[in-house]
Amino acid sequence: MRWLAAATLLSIVVPASAQDAGTLVSSALAKTTSYETLSWLTDEIGPRPSGSANAARAVEWTAGQFRAWGIDVRTEKVVVPHWVRGEERASLVSHRDQKIVLTALGGSVATPAAGITADVVEVSSYDELKQLGAKVRGRIVYYNNPMDPELVKSGRAFEAYSRAVIYRGSGASRAAEYGAVAVVIRSVASASLRTPHTGAMRYDPKHPKIPAAAMTTEDADLVHRLLARGDRVQMHMLLTPKTLPDVESANVVAEIRGSEKPDEIVLIGGHLDSWDLGTGAIDDGSGVAMVMDAMRIIRESGLRPKRTIRAVLFMNEENGLNGGRAYFAAHKNDKHVAAIETDAGAALPTGFRTTLKGDALDALTARTKVLDGLGANRFEHTAETGADTSFLIENGTVGFSLVPDPLHYFDYHHTAADTLDKIDARELQQDTAAILALTWLLAN
Amino acid sequence: MRWLAAATLLSIVVPASAQDAGTLVSSALAKTTSYETLSWLTDEIGPRPSGSANAARAVEWTAGQFRAWGIDVRTEKVVVPHWVRGEERASLVSHRDQKIVLTALGGSVATPAAGITADVVEVSSYDELKQLGAKVRGRIVYYNNPMDPELVKSGRAFEAYSRAVIYRGSGASRAAEYGAVAVVIRSVASASLRTPHTGAMRYDPKHPKIPAAAMTTEDADLVHRLLARGDRVQMHMLLTPKTLPDVESANVVAEIRGSEKPDEIVLIGGHLDSWDLGTGAIDDGSGVAMVMDAMRIIRESGLRPKRTIRAVLFMNEENGLNGGRAYFAAHKNDKHVAAIETDAGAALPTGFRTTLKGDALDALTARTKVLDGLGANRFEHTAETGADTSFLIENGTVGFSLVPDPLHYFDYHHTAADTLDKIDARELQQDTAAILALTWLLAN
Repeated sequence: MRWLAAATLLSIVVPASAQDAGTLVSSALAKTTSYETLSWLTDEIGPRPSGSANAARAVEWTAGQFRAWGIDVRTEKVVVPHWVRGEERASLVSHRDQKIVLTALGGSVATPAAGITADVVEVSSYDELKQLGAKVRGRIVYYNNPMDPELVKSGRAFEAYSRAVIYRGSGASRAAEYGAVAVVIRSVASASLRTPHTGAMRYDPKHPKIPAAAMTTEDADLVHRLLARGDRVQMHMLLTPKTLPDVESANVVAEIRGSEKPDEIVLIGGHLDSWDLGTGAIDDGSGVAMVMDAMRIIRESGLRPKRTIRAVLFMNEENGLNGGRAYFAAHKNDKHVAAIETDAGAALPTGFRTTLKGDALDALTARTKVLDGLGANRFEHTAETGADTSFLIENGTVGFSLVPDPLHYFDYHHTAADTLDKIDARELQQDTAAILALTWLLAN
Repeated sequence: MRWLAAATLLSIVVPASAQDAGTLVSSALAKTTSYETLSWLTDEIGPRPSGSANAARAVEWTAGQFRAWGIDVRTEKVVVPHWVRGEERASLVSHRDQKIVLTALGGSVATPAAGITADVVEVSSYDELKQLGAKVRGRIVYYNNPMDPELVKSGRAFEAYSRAVIYRGSGASRAAEYGAVAVVIRSVASASLRTPHTGAMRYDPKHPKIPAAAMTTEDADLVHRLLARGDRVQMHMLLTPKTLPDVESANVVAEIRGSEKPDEIVLIGGHLDSWDLGTGAIDDGSGVAMVMDAMRIIRESGLRPKRTIRAVLFMNEENGLNGGRAYFAAHKNDKHVAAIETDAGAALPTGFRTTLKGDALDALTARTKVLDGLGANRFEHTAETGADTSFLIENGTVGFSLVPDPLHYFDYHHTAADTLDKIDARELQQDTAAILALTWLLAN
């Protein structure tokens, strides 16, 4: 339902709101409060995988913070999967049991208790897999798809990621179709110190479920070299993850009601859940911290937006998107003027991606001068501005997503190294300020 | 015994040898043969900790290579310790069991089977430890000593390392003196993706042996932040390393005999053993590859040095230095003109550190123009040019050590990320050429 055209939205961005936005930005930059919030989420709560006790604690703590700040807040039920990692180890039995460092992909089934030992066959595309066909029967299929380092260096890390990551999601079922017994992918990574990158995979119900894991780029290179040399490579792998019964969890929804058009909503969101390996500082503790801190600053400013600003801390972005789906199911008839998602780390802000384009986009950028001083004034048109808000966007809401400098994002993404120390408190605060400014302008 | 003065040594570096050195350098740079050797050592053999089956394989394979190249080679007995890593895990019981990533230091005793659970006390110096005194009784002492990033950036990574690493070697016994039950150090690292750095520690027989491990810098930062916040931090740690009976191992000693002064020896050496976590590509597979390849190139050139060139692949540099000690015991009366050690990675060569200074050093550098084209012409005076050859140097031999660009060396050093992919084949070959050139000049 495209209930509000972009032009209508923008016609009411007025100079007075720009002045207030400036005031709010100044407040935001005065301290490093976002980092304090993030520090609690990562240091005191820790990893927050869907269904875990820590995820529940994160719901409780963030809701409590909103409440303590005098902001209306509620939790909204989301049923989430509960996948837990177990042991994971591998070695090359063909090469003196040289250790292979890998990690199970989220959602993978376990190997048999004694593990799987099989020959490794390398492919770099589904075309190659198809050509091999029945030759992969009984084998471990290895998808060797690096992120393009040139794209990463030129500021297009997300594009490099998108190209490489497809084998993570669907690689297991595609290989199972031809009789493979397991798959290993090359970690989708822009840096590695023997660091495996996990991430979600899904099974196609038409094919057998086979275990799936990601090797570090170092191990991926090793297996590649050995195969290229003509060696027969036999790998033993043991994975013991489990899928436990679904868990009732929640989105956290906080609101500052609009003074003039309370039914019109500007949504800002990030996600509460993280992968289990690290503490989810960049993915997406920092987004949560930006959203929470932006709400706090508005509340404490005494300023009242004309439209309602609604913060949503989504649950289960990583392995199901059930939070985004549940939110949409409950709120699809709410009048969402815009949805700003922040789930791309916390380096210096560069701007926003948006579903707006052409005149509507020009009209917006003419009114967002306050972003210039933050270096966050680059707007780029895109069809997709985030996973959790994708249901809203498909339904006609104007979408935005914050774009922090992506250079190092995939160094840490989905790894044990996604920890607080990767974030600079001042840079995070500039992200908060950018989100805050855009939110305020859109809400007024 | 200072049997040969530096001046005597240098007086016989003549132009003809410089021309031959140039020829040898050209041969060295024509292919990337050093990388092929290194690839075998790391990919096909793998980690080579002292006392392991892989270390024995490395002795056998490298000796076999020298033999295949027509170079005289022998193995010389070295008895080495045999320490094996076991399980290692830790968590903060005070903080919802948040995981702490650590690795046992080489030589550490195990914890009791159920692990150790104790409060953590942070110090950054032995002075602080002493001030705390009995307050560390029953505690885990945490040494928080980062490498100075400014030193690393300015090309002085080894200095930053030397300053930070002292707590790794002696920290356990110093803390045990005051009743600590275990120690954890901050990994001595210039980069981390949750990457623990191991390394040797030693016990002072006067104090109880307590377990010792290195946390990643991320975990070190976490514990620091929690303590700084005033939290009580309780850690559980379980380590199950074992010290097995000593093993008879070997140095590999290969020689190209001198045509005029066969009794005078120019030694070039690296070490065969590595830590167990990675495959020892930078530490010190690359040194071994340089030394081996330099010998092969000389042999294949048909040129004959005036002095004997002796390659020594030392065993047990990492945790005992028994190879260096055994070599010295057997050869202290040999006339070592110079000893060139290469154990600092395989980035682009920048020059050499040397025990020479003043006029003697000037006289040498006047004759090493061939190094200019390799960018390896910077000579810096130092008292220490390597661990394995330190016994020779103390006995009066002139020492040299190759200095590859140290910027990233401590990103990988003693970690699982010390793997072949960290090495550029062309850069390694330039190192080989630099070693080869200096060796030839000194031998003629």
